[in-house]
Parts: sequence; structure tokens; C-alpha cells
Amino acid sequence: MDNRAIGVFDSGLGGLTAVRQLHLAMPNENIIYFGDTGRVPYGSRSRRTVLNYARQDVAFLNQHHIKAIVIACGTVSSQVLGDIKAENTIPIVGVVEPTCYAAMRKTKNNRIGIIGTKGTVRSGAYEAKLHTLDPSVHTIARPCPLFVPLVEAGRFQPDDRVTQLVIEEYLAEIRDFDVDTLILGCTHYPLLREAIQAFMGDTVTLIDSGAEAAKYVRKFLDPAQPGKGSTEYYVSDDPDSFDEYAEMFLGEPAGVRAQLVEIASY
Amino acid sequence: MDNRAIGVFDSGLGGLTAVRQLHLAMPNENIIYFGDTGRVPYGSRSRRTVLNYARQDVAFLNQHHIKAIVIACGTVSSQVLGDIKAENTIPIVGVVEPTCYAAMRKTKNNRIGIIGTKGTVRSGAYEAKLHTLDPSVHTIARPCPLFVPLVEAGRFQPDDRVTQLVIEEYLAEIRDFDVDTLILGCTHYPLLREAIQAFMGDTVTLIDSGAEAAKYVRKFLDPAQPGKGSTEYYVSDDPDSFDEYAEMFLGEPAGVRAQLVEIASY
Repeated sequence: MDNRAIGVFDSGLGGLTAVRQLHLAMPNENIIYFGDTGRVPYGSRSRRTVLNYARQDVAFLNQHHIKAIVIACGTVSSQVLGDIKAENTIPIVGVVEPTCYAAMRKTKNNRIGIIGTKGTVRSGAYEAKLHTLDPSVHTIARPCPLFVPLVEAGRFQPDDRVTQLVIEEYLAEIRDFDVDTLILGCTHYPLLREAIQAFMGDTVTLIDSGAEAAKYVRKFLDPAQPGKGSTEYYVSDDPDSFDEYAEMFLGEPAGVRAQLVEIASY
Repeated sequence: MDNRAIGVFDSGLGGLTAVRQLHLAMPNENIIYFGDTGRVPYGSRSRRTVLNYARQDVAFLNQHHIKAIVIACGTVSSQVLGDIKAENTIPIVGVVEPTCYAAMRKTKNNRIGIIGTKGTVRSGAYEAKLHTLDPSVHTIARPCPLFVPLVEAGRFQPDDRVTQLVIEEYLAEIRDFDVDTLILGCTHYPLLREAIQAFMGDTVTLIDSGAEAAKYVRKFLDPAQPGKGSTEYYVSDDPDSFDEYAEMFLGEPAGVRAQLVEIASY
């Protein structure tokens, strides 16, 4: 039994979709969440800056009593996971590996689509992992740079015409490629699930990368003692609007205020 | 004659539209430009974070030999100009005041629209200034949170369907309010000028806030000696893609690489 917390971070609040899954899968665990709301988004920044920011995020979490880190950010996971793992001794779980395992379990026709930020798609990390698991898999990846701004503008209602038009433009080729499985390679994208599912059709399985990472971490952990775990939330911009957004990503109000962190000092 | 440079900063590269105007209006002047590309966008961040970032941007420029600062960022100008002015002795010019003067000169029916980021519109700075200049002016302001992401995704072609749809949604009420003058209160927006003009109609005058600030600063300055001024560019994220974007905002290639700045250390 190990009651130390699980550290989770993301560029912003998208990673709260992973926290939600951690709560469901392991209700006993304590969680420390950091969302870098003062510097979001990471998706279009250079690898160098993403690494710099990720190191500070990890340094902040390491100040707490944690037993593992879940990187609930597709951009960090796909570009700099190796560096972060090499610099730390506790287990570090990114979203790419667990998501690829889940996609390979689900696909029947061996045709998998991947969507993510510019940085994530440019890295080729998902395709590389999928091909390691099965060299015969067929993949297609497309960057969706407007999805994060659309989610952050609260435009995830499935009948939003702008969102529908952007989805159609980004996903038409992937649908035409006849995938039966689509990896949502960014933790913001599950909020667009309904609109994406409507466009792709019911026969396509959507894989939620944050949720898969949350389920996967369980395998590495010495679990906490029975009892309800607590969660602490930290952000790098004014936490005033945190509860409103947290409800959007957690599916319920966080119930507590987030605390402000001067992340650039880590 | 004062050969010290003019410092210009913006949250990202939008402020290069002001640099372009400075070159046109005052070709002799030396310019130091800083674009906070590692932390863009500012528009949806809290006032506290905007002030913190703006202070660092100013501290960086103050390391150079400068005689004035142009804040080519609507979000900073409308929310924290007073703080920045109070903390510095050289002249500081934001975009709000010069833009409001220009709008009042242009309007014939005394009906002016204002568009900007969430932070800019929430501040009410443009309306307040316009009403100071003429208490009888009628104003309407709307935030356009997707405009910056659309520009940064390179989607400013006037026939881009997504951009057209977003413009229609954001600007319909302003058009119906029968304005004859529209303030583009964010230095990214001039890249959408053609599409905005097409929607608003030829009878509406668009006011470019960065350009107005650039023209206005001339009044305060002891000018540089005759001769072609030089420009240095600094950014806070990897400058590799700088030239490509600079061309978009400057209207021509910058011709030099930007230099990287660790802005959080200022």
C-alpha cells in the first residue's frame, strides 16, 4: 500500500478528462493536478519550448509526495517523453503507448486514424508505436489546430456549425481512408466526441488518450489504502474561472478552488 | 536627433503589422521588436497574468538602448497600460488612444464598432476612451476569440469558409448596429481585413490599431538622424519558423533571423 499521490499534468485543463478516469478506475488514489493555463496551448510550440515547459511541470509535481506521473498531454507525450523519463526515477506514463495498445485491441480492419496537435502529428509518435505493435497496420494522421481553440471557446455542442465545418474539413480524408478506430490524441478532443462521432459514423471507435493513460497507470502502482482519495488542483493562471472549466472537463464541479503556481520559477 | 531605438512588443507576431507602419512612417528609426511567441495568446488570460507578462516584455526591451515603447498588443494596452506607464519613465504608447482618435476622425454617423480579444472587450477600454472624446458616440463591442487562432492557422484567405462563417457570427450584430467605422482592436486582425471588409461592406472604415499606434508615436519622438534604420527581432519560442510568419505580418520577409529570449527570466 502506497498512499503517495499520483501527479497529473497537462498544458491546460484538458488533462482533467484523465483525472475523471483516474477517479473512476482508482477511487482510493490521491491526485495532484497541474494545468499550465498561463502558457496553454503547447500544441504549436517548438519541441525545445515544450521540453522546457514539461520539465517545469514535472519539477512542480516532484515538490509533492508523489509515486508516479501521468502526462495527460498529447504534445508532451509524443515529443519529449523519453527526455522526461530519463530525468526521473518514479514511473512516468504518457498517453501515446496506452492509447496505441487500446487502438490495436479495438481495430478489426487494421486501419487506424490519429488526430492531434501540429506538434503531436509532426512527431509521428503514434504511428511509430502502432507499427511497432503490428507492422501491417494502416495509419493516417492529421493535425487539427483549431480543435483546442474551439473547445476553449466552449464550442463543442454537436450542432455548432463552425465546429461541424472544421470537423468535416479535418476528418474527411480520415473517414475516406475507411478507419474503424480513431485516436483522439489530445486530451481536449473528448469534448468534441459527440460531434466527431456524428461525422465519423457509429461504426468507428473513438479512443480517448487521457482515459487510456489513466487506466494504464494502474498496472504500475502499489495502490493506496482503501478510503476516498483527495485531489488538489494547481494552475498557472488566475484560478477564478477554474471551477467553471473544471466542470466542463471533469463532468462535475471540482468543488474546490485551484491554487496558483508561478510555474516559470521551477 | 535621438538615434536610440523604438521598442515594440506584442504577445506574438501580430505586432509586426505595427513595425511595418513604423517603417513606412519613420524609415530612419531603429526598432527592437519582441514577440512573446512562447506564451501567445494573451487575449484569454487573466489581468494578473497579462500584467506579469507585460512587465517582463518591458524589462527585456529596457535592457536595450530605447527611447520609447509601442505596446502593439490590444490586450495589454486595454488592461494594464496605466500600470506599465506608472512604472517607466520613457514614453509608452498603447494602441487604444491613437485608435480611438483615428476612429473619431473617420466616423460620420457617430456609430463605432470595436472587436478584440475577450480581455480587451471585457476591459471596456475602447468604449471608455471614445466616450471621453465624444459623450454622444454610439458604440458596440464584441469579443472574437477565434480570430487569433484562425490567423495563426493561416486561414485569412477571404474565401475560407470557416473564417467567413466565424466572421458572420461575430460581426452580424455590429453590422446591424449600422456602424460606419470598425476598430480592429487586436494586431492580428488586419490579416483578416479583406474578409472582414467583404462582410461589413465598402462603406465601413476599418481602423488598424497597430498602424494607428505606429503613426501616433511620431508625435512624441525626437527623431533619428537621416539614414536607413535597422530592426532587430526577438522571440520567446524557437525562431526557426519566424521568417515564414514575419512575411505574413510584415508583408515582406524580415530578412534576418529572430533571436531567442528566455523571457521568464526578466
